[in-house]
Amino acid sequence: MMHYPRFAARFAVLVSELRGKQVTVIGHQRPDADCIGSQVALCRVLRAHGVEAVCMNPDKVPRRIKFLVGDTPFYGRDELSPEGRVAIFTDCADHGRAGEKVRTMYSAPIACVDHHISNQGFARFDFVDTASAAAAEVLTGLFLDADLPIDRVTAQALYTGMMTDTGQFRFPSTSERVFRLSAELVARGADPALAGAELYERESLGKLKLLQHFIGSLRLECGGRVCLGVLPQGIFASSGATEEDTEGLVDYARSIDGVEIGVLIEERPGTVKASLRGKLSVYRMDTIAAQFNGGGHANAAGLNWPGTLPDFYPALLAAITQRLNEVDAALA
Amino acid sequence: MMHYPRFAARFAVLVSELRGKQVTVIGHQRPDADCIGSQVALCRVLRAHGVEAVCMNPDKVPRRIKFLVGDTPFYGRDELSPEGRVAIFTDCADHGRAGEKVRTMYSAPIACVDHHISNQGFARFDFVDTASAAAAEVLTGLFLDADLPIDRVTAQALYTGMMTDTGQFRFPSTSERVFRLSAELVARGADPALAGAELYERESLGKLKLLQHFIGSLRLECGGRVCLGVLPQGIFASSGATEEDTEGLVDYARSIDGVEIGVLIEERPGTVKASLRGKLSVYRMDTIAAQFNGGGHANAAGLNWPGTLPDFYPALLAAITQRLNEVDAALA
Ligand SMILES: [Mn+2]
Ligand SMILES: [Mn+2]
Repeated sequence: MMHYPRFAARFAVLVSELRGKQVTVIGHQRPDADCIGSQVALCRVLRAHGVEAVCMNPDKVPRRIKFLVGDTPFYGRDELSPEGRVAIFTDCADHGRAGEKVRTMYSAPIACVDHHISNQGFARFDFVDTASAAAAEVLTGLFLDADLPIDRVTAQALYTGMMTDTGQFRFPSTSERVFRLSAELVARGADPALAGAELYERESLGKLKLLQHFIGSLRLECGGRVCLGVLPQGIFASSGATEEDTEGLVDYARSIDGVEIGVLIEERPGTVKASLRGKLSVYRMDTIAAQFNGGGHANAAGLNWPGTLPDFYPALLAAITQRLNEVDAALA
Repeated sequence: MMHYPRFAARFAVLVSELRGKQVTVIGHQRPDADCIGSQVALCRVLRAHGVEAVCMNPDKVPRRIKFLVGDTPFYGRDELSPEGRVAIFTDCADHGRAGEKVRTMYSAPIACVDHHISNQGFARFDFVDTASAAAAEVLTGLFLDADLPIDRVTAQALYTGMMTDTGQFRFPSTSERVFRLSAELVARGADPALAGAELYERESLGKLKLLQHFIGSLRLECGGRVCLGVLPQGIFASSGATEEDTEGLVDYARSIDGVEIGVLIEERPGTVKASLRGKLSVYRMDTIAAQFNGGGHANAAGLNWPGTLPDFYPALLAAITQRLNEVDAALA
C-alpha cells in the first residue's frame, strides 16, 4: 500500500537527480523535533543512498532534542559554504523560514518537504501535504513508498517528529496513517519510551517553578469559558527558568473543564506577549491575535503588543468576549 | 497477519460457547479507562454477535471516562443478579480485583482477558498476555483475528484503553502492535483527538491548585537524583480537589532532568501515603515500598504507613539512599 501515491514518481526523480550532488538539508529557525527529526532523517537516507548530504540549521539544536542527531553531520549557518550545494528545506512553510540570509544563500531550493497549511510551494520539487501531521510523516511515507532503507537513528528521528507534532497523538491531525507509519518506524528500531523520556522527563526545576507560578495566576473569566494566566516581569530570574520554558504552559489554562480559550500572558519591558489556545477552531485565535499585532492559526495564535499589562488585559478580554458573543449568536 | 495467534482458536471456542448464554463483563474496582474501555468493547462485540451481554462494575464509571460508555448497558454490583449468568473478567490481575463480594457472586468465571504480569489465570478460558500494554490491546487483537465487527463506540473504547495504559504511547510497553492496532481502530472510527480532549482537557481548577502546591513543595535530595513533594493534610479542602486528583502528580517529581526517583507523599490522619516512581526498573520501587507496608511494580509502587510525616520522611529517604548506593555499587 502506498502512503503518498501522488508523490512517489516525483520523489523517485528527485532522488535520481541528487546522485553526485552535494545536498544541504535545511530546517527552520527555532527548530522543533519535527524539524530536526526530518533533517536528520532525510540527510541519513540520502547518505545511505550515496548522496553527500549534510544538515544545516540557522539555530542550535535545542538541548532536549539533541538525542535525535546521533552521528548525522550538522552545521550552523555560517559554518558551511553554499558554494556548489543544492538545498532541500524540511518543515518550512516558506523559503524565508530559515531566515533571510539562508534564503539568499540558497535562492533556488531543489526540494521542500512540508505539511504547513500556508505552504504554497517554493522549490523545484515540492512535497507538501497539508493533511499530514508532520514533515516527518511525509518523509516516512516517501521513504517507505520508495523502499529506501531506514536505519535506527532515522526511525527514532522520524517517530519523534510525528510524536511531538501530534501532541503525543492527540491533535486532530492524528490519522490512521500516523499510526501505521509509527508502527513501521518502531519495527525499524524507533523507541517510543526513549522519545518520551527525552522529551518529557528532562524538565528543569525552573520550568516547574514557572508552571507553579502560572497556575497560581490563573483566572477564570466569561463564566468559566476563558482562563488567563500571567507571567510577570522578573519571573524568569527568580525561578531560574528560560523563555524557552514557557512552551506548553498555556495548555494548562486550556485544559480546565468548561474552558474554551486558554491564554498565557507574559509581561516584558515595554511590551506584552500572549499565547492564545482555543479548544475549537470556530473561536479563531488568529483573528483575535490580529487585533493586537499578532497572528497564527485558528486553534493557536500569538502576539506581541507594545503596551502595559493593565492596558492589555481588559482589551484582550473585551476582544475575546466579543468573539464568544459572535459565535454564540451564530450558533443560536 | 494474526495479532495473537496463540489465542485465536481458543477465542473462537469461547465465542461459540457463549451463544445463548447471559454474560456479565466485569472490571476491577476503581476502574480506569483500560478497564471500562475493555468492558464496553467486549460487551458490544458480544451483543453484536447475538450474545446477551452487559457490563458490571463494583464502582461507578469515573466522570472523565463516561464518554466511552455510549449506550452500552452498565450495572452496579448490587443492581444485577448473578443468577444464570456467566462472567468474563477484563483488566483484572486476579479473581478478587472486583472485590470479595463479586468473587463470591461469580465464583467460576468462564473467561478472563488481561495483561498484568502477576495474572496467573483464574478462568476456564484465560487470555492473558503480559507483553501487551493493555487489556484493550489484547481484545482488539482477538476481535481482528476473529474478524468480528468493531463499531465506532467499540473502537473509541479500545483506542482509549490503549492510549491511557501506554501513558499516551510513552511507556516501554508501546510496541509496534500497539500502533498497528491503533491504526485499525482509527480506521473503524476511533477519534484520538476526542480521547485526548476528554482525558486531558477536562481538568478541575482544584486539580491544578493541587499541582501548584505539589510543585511548590518539591525538594531535591541525594544530589538531585531523588525528588520528593508533599501534600499536607487539609490541602484537599483548601484547594477544592478530590483524592482522585492526585493521579499523575508524582510524574512531575520524576520528570525533572537528573531525577531518577520521584515521590509523592500525602499526609493523612494517623497515616502517611506515598507513591514512588522510578525512571529505571533497577531501583525497584516495589522493594522500597515493601519496607513501609506497601508494594507494586519495579517502576511504580505505593504504600500506606501508620505514622507521621516527620517520622516517615527521613525513614523513606534513608531507604531510598541505601537502594541508590546498592545499585551504584552493583554497577561500579
Ligand atoms: Mn512540523
Ligand atoms: Mn490495563
